[in-house]
Amino acid sequence: MIRSISESPLYPIVNPKSIAFFGASNTFMRMGSIMLSSLQALGYEGKIFPVHPTEKVVRGLPAYPSILDVPEIPDLAIIVLPTEIVCRTLDDCGKKGIRSAIVVSGGFREAGPEGAALQKELETIARRHGIRFLGPNCLGVANLHLKLNPTPIKADCQAGFVGLASQSGSFITQMFNYLYRHGMGFSAALSVGNEASIDIVDCLEYLGACPNTKVITLYIEGINRGDKFMEIAKAITPHKPIVALYVGGSEAGKQAGLSHTGSLSGPNEIYDGIFKQCGIIRAQTLTELFDYALALGTLPEPGGNRIVIQTHSGGPGATAADSCGRSGLTLPRLSPETVEKLKPMIPKTASTANPVDMTFSKNPSEDYFNIPDALLQDKQTDMLLAYFVSPGLFLERILGEMGIAEEAVGAEADKLIGDYAQKFVSLIQRHPDKPIVGFTYRSLQEKMVRTLLDSGVPVYQDPERAARSLAAVREYHERRGRM
Amino acid sequence: MIRSISESPLYPIVNPKSIAFFGASNTFMRMGSIMLSSLQALGYEGKIFPVHPTEKVVRGLPAYPSILDVPEIPDLAIIVLPTEIVCRTLDDCGKKGIRSAIVVSGGFREAGPEGAALQKELETIARRHGIRFLGPNCLGVANLHLKLNPTPIKADCQAGFVGLASQSGSFITQMFNYLYRHGMGFSAALSVGNEASIDIVDCLEYLGACPNTKVITLYIEGINRGDKFMEIAKAITPHKPIVALYVGGSEAGKQAGLSHTGSLSGPNEIYDGIFKQCGIIRAQTLTELFDYALALGTLPEPGGNRIVIQTHSGGPGATAADSCGRSGLTLPRLSPETVEKLKPMIPKTASTANPVDMTFSKNPSEDYFNIPDALLQDKQTDMLLAYFVSPGLFLERILGEMGIAEEAVGAEADKLIGDYAQKFVSLIQRHPDKPIVGFTYRSLQEKMVRTLLDSGVPVYQDPERAARSLAAVREYHERRGRM
Repeated sequence: MIRSISESPLYPIVNPKSIAFFGASNTFMRMGSIMLSSLQALGYEGKIFPVHPTEKVVRGLPAYPSILDVPEIPDLAIIVLPTEIVCRTLDDCGKKGIRSAIVVSGGFREAGPEGAALQKELETIARRHGIRFLGPNCLGVANLHLKLNPTPIKADCQAGFVGLASQSGSFITQMFNYLYRHGMGFSAALSVGNEASIDIVDCLEYLGACPNTKVITLYIEGINRGDKFMEIAKAITPHKPIVALYVGGSEAGKQAGLSHTGSLSGPNEIYDGIFKQCGIIRAQTLTELFDYALALGTLPEPGGNRIVIQTHSGGPGATAADSCGRSGLTLPRLSPETVEKLKPMIPKTASTANPVDMTFSKNPSEDYFNIPDALLQDKQTDMLLAYFVSPGLFLERILGEMGIAEEAVGAEADKLIGDYAQKFVSLIQRHPDKPIVGFTYRSLQEKMVRTLLDSGVPVYQDPERAARSLAAVREYHERRGRM
Repeated sequence: MIRSISESPLYPIVNPKSIAFFGASNTFMRMGSIMLSSLQALGYEGKIFPVHPTEKVVRGLPAYPSILDVPEIPDLAIIVLPTEIVCRTLDDCGKKGIRSAIVVSGGFREAGPEGAALQKELETIARRHGIRFLGPNCLGVANLHLKLNPTPIKADCQAGFVGLASQSGSFITQMFNYLYRHGMGFSAALSVGNEASIDIVDCLEYLGACPNTKVITLYIEGINRGDKFMEIAKAITPHKPIVALYVGGSEAGKQAGLSHTGSLSGPNEIYDGIFKQCGIIRAQTLTELFDYALALGTLPEPGGNRIVIQTHSGGPGATAADSCGRSGLTLPRLSPETVEKLKPMIPKTASTANPVDMTFSKNPSEDYFNIPDALLQDKQTDMLLAYFVSPGLFLERILGEMGIAEEAVGAEADKLIGDYAQKFVSLIQRHPDKPIVGFTYRSLQEKMVRTLLDSGVPVYQDPERAARSLAAVREYHERRGRM
């Protein structure tokens, strides 16, 4: 197990100071051109050397007819060329002295016996030159902390704490926006493709040591180095959570994985056993993968499984209670002191059972601070799940009714909502040992919830997702404790 | 079982030509005022008679000191008053000749023994006058086809085909936007509250006969008239699907329901048995409730459980395959004829196994018509699940690179995407016997998917949700067949 990312063969690939780029041209509708354009768009600050047989300038950058003509030895080569010329190109890179590469091109092992032979050749060339590479048949890396995104889709998101090692390139490049919408961002995301030189185990090891990564997510179709995977995972999970989505366990998933990356899968039970032994949390869907990552990357270890639900609507409270029950969380009665504290803050028709159903807001600023604060102070509770509707809906109507000019209403409502959200966020520091989570059926992009997401409060689109994510946090710490 | 909605006691409540409104005033921060304001905002075309002891005009409408002063007999009374004066008010309504009411006020059975006594009194008064009413402790109705929305939240959505009978008012008023975002709208939504006069069984019967309702959704904390419920449900499911979310089965859900509406719940197994016997599909979460409703309201009965997955990304294809496998759907091999048809349309590196992985688009217009059309023509397939990324992402970049002025790029891309979406939508008519469904990890509000949703193609935020919804459609038709 490495102690620093600089020991990993991935280090120059994820943190290059200079890149030789093969396959980009001034014709935009080529994968290489699109990828280079993404890299430029995010503002990567290292040097880029496009290599092109005929064009002198590629996308505004001086281009070189051969890698041998490039005036220095780049840290990394990114190869997005037709299959037939990939081996020759990697050989040239080796001659130049390049020792790290990303081979994006497909047509290798995943394409049948001929491609498999070609992949063998590629591996031989790499070994001869001491080159380590990601791929072939991958989308490479995104290191958003370095503004490095040579993938097909622009990174419309911020850098975050989620590390991803994926046997699908799509789950890097197509998830930027998904992660942003759900309150996250990638630290580093690695697409391994056919794993000819660097495999998902190497990526796991890298992310384990990566200081920007607070939680590791894995998308797995099949693991080849099982023993090494377990050794590395066991070394990581005591200090950093790992969540894994494994799709090769069903017949349908197995077949799909085989034609995708040609990887070998095994029955669900075997993978379940491996994950359990290593303290890894298993997700069944991509939604769960990132739901759990959000919770594991932001929440403290809860003292127990007793949850209090705060709502102002009975139905959402009852569905949340049902979901919590299904996820193994219990709903304690509040202590008499808490009930007394709540009484002046809530209407007569409200319920101080759990869920605490305020029915309606007597004073919105108490809903977002004093009431949840009282619930979190109660020694009977280990965590809080709060329901959020959109306070903007009412605020804008109220302000409008108060005669405030229409154009001022939106800004005024936004300010009030921002204040409410910040009050709620301040509960995290007041109760550092109790996970605080929300759910809503409104869009996550509305002011209140967006502010919570941006400030480290996970908010989910359904209480079931919140409850399962809290259960995943519990499970992680339990497994860690047993290891 | 009624044959027309006009036979139902709910008819004047859901379709009133005139309303007496109690509890609205010119002070906006009152529930009654907010509800009246929502009603006005949607443009309800019937007459509204606010009743207020002192104010002469309420929210711009002539107000009356007593219901007895109103110049005609309104079809419906909506009562949003303090608990203490509700009985007296209903009695006055009876004297006036009103025979239908919505009692929004709480503080009755759900509030303990004193409230329960008050509810008995309310029931006696209603019986004496022959009044049928929804509530107390409810949010009444929304009939969007009639622009009728006297609930606290404005209806920022369109009328649709989803009927809802709910033991939570929140799931009506707080779901308008949710349904819109997910491609649906309510036909009629009914909140039953404490069910003192009209219960969820009456609502089910109404929705069964409602011509605007193509699928019925139920939110249940506990059913009192079990036998009648089963009789009505059995009469409906042969011609209209019912999906039910029941939360009273877990200990936590049971407790929550008890303090919410005071309803009696039973073990999950009993409800499962009832649902099965009646041909009702059970949802475990609100997300599932409306996911299934969308599929059941739009998709035809599939001929079998063989699904073909279309993707241009291996990972999403494999996760979709895994989800389909988990939901009992099988992935057939395509016929040799289909494989031949596909070959000229897809790149060499593409896979014609199932999932069909195009890897990238040779010609986007073929991706959205010719390719899925070929997959649907194949006799081996019963349904199609297609993966959607955002074509706008690339189109805007391509158009920008082509030198099209920045301000024209968005409009041009939107037009192209609209055309693609319409081509895909035209597959519904070409293949009326095969369900066509999509999934995406992008926002549902992006042009492509939004157009699909608006045109009757269900698109889900995760393949698991799509697969489970398709399985729910299968299950509905199987249960119907057995009945």
